[in-house]
Amino acid sequence: MQRIEGKTVAEAVLATLKQEIAAMGAQGCTPGLAVVLVGEDPASQVYVGSKVKACAELGMYSQKWAMPAETTQEELIDLIKQLNADDRIHGILVQSPPPAHIDEEAVVRAIDPRKDVDGFHPENVAKLVLEDETGFVPCTPLGCMELLKAAGICTQGAHAVVIGRSMIVGKPMANLLLSRKANATVTIAHSRTKDLPAVCRTADILIAAVGRPEMVTADYVKEGAVVIDVGINRIEDPTRPRGYRIVGDVDFESVAPKCKAITPVPGGVGPMTIAMLMSNTVKACKQLAAQ
Amino acid sequence: MQRIEGKTVAEAVLATLKQEIAAMGAQGCTPGLAVVLVGEDPASQVYVGSKVKACAELGMYSQKWAMPAETTQEELIDLIKQLNADDRIHGILVQSPPPAHIDEEAVVRAIDPRKDVDGFHPENVAKLVLEDETGFVPCTPLGCMELLKAAGICTQGAHAVVIGRSMIVGKPMANLLLSRKANATVTIAHSRTKDLPAVCRTADILIAAVGRPEMVTADYVKEGAVVIDVGINRIEDPTRPRGYRIVGDVDFESVAPKCKAITPVPGGVGPMTIAMLMSNTVKACKQLAAQ
Repeated sequence: MQRIEGKTVAEAVLATLKQEIAAMGAQGCTPGLAVVLVGEDPASQVYVGSKVKACAELGMYSQKWAMPAETTQEELIDLIKQLNADDRIHGILVQSPPPAHIDEEAVVRAIDPRKDVDGFHPENVAKLVLEDETGFVPCTPLGCMELLKAAGICTQGAHAVVIGRSMIVGKPMANLLLSRKANATVTIAHSRTKDLPAVCRTADILIAAVGRPEMVTADYVKEGAVVIDVGINRIEDPTRPRGYRIVGDVDFESVAPKCKAITPVPGGVGPMTIAMLMSNTVKACKQLAAQ
Repeated sequence: MQRIEGKTVAEAVLATLKQEIAAMGAQGCTPGLAVVLVGEDPASQVYVGSKVKACAELGMYSQKWAMPAETTQEELIDLIKQLNADDRIHGILVQSPPPAHIDEEAVVRAIDPRKDVDGFHPENVAKLVLEDETGFVPCTPLGCMELLKAAGICTQGAHAVVIGRSMIVGKPMANLLLSRKANATVTIAHSRTKDLPAVCRTADILIAAVGRPEMVTADYVKEGAVVIDVGINRIEDPTRPRGYRIVGDVDFESVAPKCKAITPVPGGVGPMTIAMLMSNTVKACKQLAAQ
């Protein structure tokens, strides 16, 4: 069983990006990311903090906008327009979820699609379906594809089963695996799927993106399958100093022995997501510079 | 075995639309479709002719634009801009394929997405993925869904296998079946799929959209499956007056006895496509009137 070390893969991606960013900077073009947070959600603050920190470590320019919870949608969209027009900024990310009074779709649509490094703008959703590589792909599924590549897993003709049909992971993941580059046969399963374990057991590559702690047990997995665990779930654990631990959607203990390869949680998909955000921002900078 | 008579279903759809169009006309709002043909391809001329004829039969307004093969992309896009601005026109369709010197994607992008009744504009591609029902869905997969509904086939929790990953049929079909309305578990198979017959045999609902005459034989089909045949292929047949006959992607003779339900070719999906075009144009008219 091969343990796919996302942390190591992410570090290698970031090291490559760092060199590239230095070379771009020497030519007077430093990639810049703006991260916008509305409200005081503690988890969101942690995410935003690590994104800004990652920029600094790579020598990228960044702006952090922390706006109060009572910010109106209009004020937020005005800020986005300002960032769209700011030549130092190549990627714009609004940390999800915004407060309930803000229409997230309207906010995403306000972002210049060329700076939409999260890949949630309809223009980029369509480009993924159309296999137009100038578009931006959401960071988590992009990170999963990088992990498969780094682990030497061939997707050509393989049967991939994606559990989950979200806009952020499941659907873009299915499109990436189905593309003419990857050529997997793709099944998308979800909460309404009948006999989910049996469907999952047909998978050569199983991607779990359901958000239910350790739901995928050994009976979901074919002997010799590759398992990518997208889940990041907190479960109570009084033996830990913080009172909880982080587990994936996969029950690693029971599943790992059956696998050809598997990602751990933490240290699997998680570290890749932020690396792909950096990669998307560098791509946006290059594409904008070429225009 | 239930034979799903697309011709009958399409006639019922058109009869309902005809009443609706009459009622809309009485309120001073008659749906209008513009069909644009560039070049003299005989098959395209037939398709365009039947679309214009269908409009006339329903009491819809239509314009037919037959442009010479040497029309430039700029001239074509100028025409589209004119049609975008024309209040009598609610649907715009450019017959595919255009001559080789024209970039079809640029042409599709020039169409106002609110008038894109073919559903090929990126805005509508994204809306389908996002399950935003204000968008337009390509007519052929939309027709397949209507056929399933008319035949009383429940998609909830069913395993649907779509053979083909085209932008026109396979991908939108998969999205429709996967949506929270249909809730099927969806597998997309294609030319690179390993052991395609075995994958297809797992299907409760099998959608064949490969464009290869009678490729799907009995060994592709599980006993009791529902088979929707999207193929329209000409094969030589010297016994026919025209020297050819039309067959689907499914070998009807061998497959039909195993099926719970199956669409014939011709008379299955084909008639639904044009009915859905009319339906999309009526929808566009209503949505534009409400703005």
